[in-house]
Amino acid sequence: MFEVLISHIEEKVTLSEKDKNALQAFFVPKRIRKRQYLLQEGDICKNLAFVSKGLLRTYNVDEKGDEHMNVFGWEGWWISDFNSFLTGIPSVFNIDAIEDSEVLLLSRTNYEEITLAIPVMDRYFRILYQNSIVTKERRLMSSVTDTAEEKYLRLSASNPEIIERIPQNLVASYLGIAPETLSRIKKNLTVKK
Amino acid sequence: MFEVLISHIEEKVTLSEKDKNALQAFFVPKRIRKRQYLLQEGDICKNLAFVSKGLLRTYNVDEKGDEHMNVFGWEGWWISDFNSFLTGIPSVFNIDAIEDSEVLLLSRTNYEEITLAIPVMDRYFRILYQNSIVTKERRLMSSVTDTAEEKYLRLSASNPEIIERIPQNLVASYLGIAPETLSRIKKNLTVKK
Repeated sequence: MFEVLISHIEEKVTLSEKDKNALQAFFVPKRIRKRQYLLQEGDICKNLAFVSKGLLRTYNVDEKGDEHMNVFGWEGWWISDFNSFLTGIPSVFNIDAIEDSEVLLLSRTNYEEITLAIPVMDRYFRILYQNSIVTKERRLMSSVTDTAEEKYLRLSASNPEIIERIPQNLVASYLGIAPETLSRIKKNLTVKK
Repeated sequence: MFEVLISHIEEKVTLSEKDKNALQAFFVPKRIRKRQYLLQEGDICKNLAFVSKGLLRTYNVDEKGDEHMNVFGWEGWWISDFNSFLTGIPSVFNIDAIEDSEVLLLSRTNYEEITLAIPVMDRYFRILYQNSIVTKERRLMSSVTDTAEEKYLRLSASNPEIIERIPQNLVASYLGIAPETLSRIKKNLTVKK
């Protein structure tokens, strides 16, 4: 389970053999079956979860009972309600598994301790967060300026393999469009090809 | 000029005397007069700017010529088009000074080098970015769920001194409301007191 994590970290920073052995002790592995929850709205998010296998999503539910997709997380992604994790306030998101999944959980205490024990993890998280800020800004910008077709093309270009694994109604919700609109866009794109 | 920066860093991490002396060489001080630009839309953002004195803002201008406030930065804040800075794509924001200001500029190269020369700066930026992610998520959430009055109360509670320094039309733009709505809210709040 740790190979995916270690190779993800090594894309960003250099780990010594000692670091690689030391870091495993800070994580708790967990299996989550399809449709099972990792976090429920209103609970405090006690862990950052690194996805070593499978596919999960964060979403919230409005007063009318409609689900709103937030993000997907698959192999090599971290998933959490980051605000709840850091501040201890109740989570506004649900996290559940779209496929049978395996995650490595890093608790709040271990998050602090791992950066003290393995200082290069500060660099790893620094790079992870700076990329995340850029992605969030782009997505925010795209949500304002792009058409539904442009949004879909951007998503499928950046994540060509994963988009086939995600149920199409969730892709539509992520893009903020109706499932029928997504079907029409995909049909048009196929014709253009 | 460096005292504000050093004390800001020391709120988050411990700096040795050697670190404090070393870090100054990575920054270029710059004075910006009121209304002067630090960055113009379409240019590449070449520096992260730490505000050691004064008040700046980032904003964009839509096709109709209307300005949309993004963020304010005053003493102890970093200001940039972070996406442009990291990726080298043209900036979508303008940055200008609301007051006569002094900033410390950290170039892209120096940003990489400072974390190699002073590794605790990775920890500093890691903490800075994790706070920034939380703030952005809260603001996004607030923009969807809060009323204009709630938004104003949240802003003035978290930044009581600074809000008096910002022209009220910019505060209104930041909150996404008309200046007249802001005046009415403030009048109502005064009556309630």
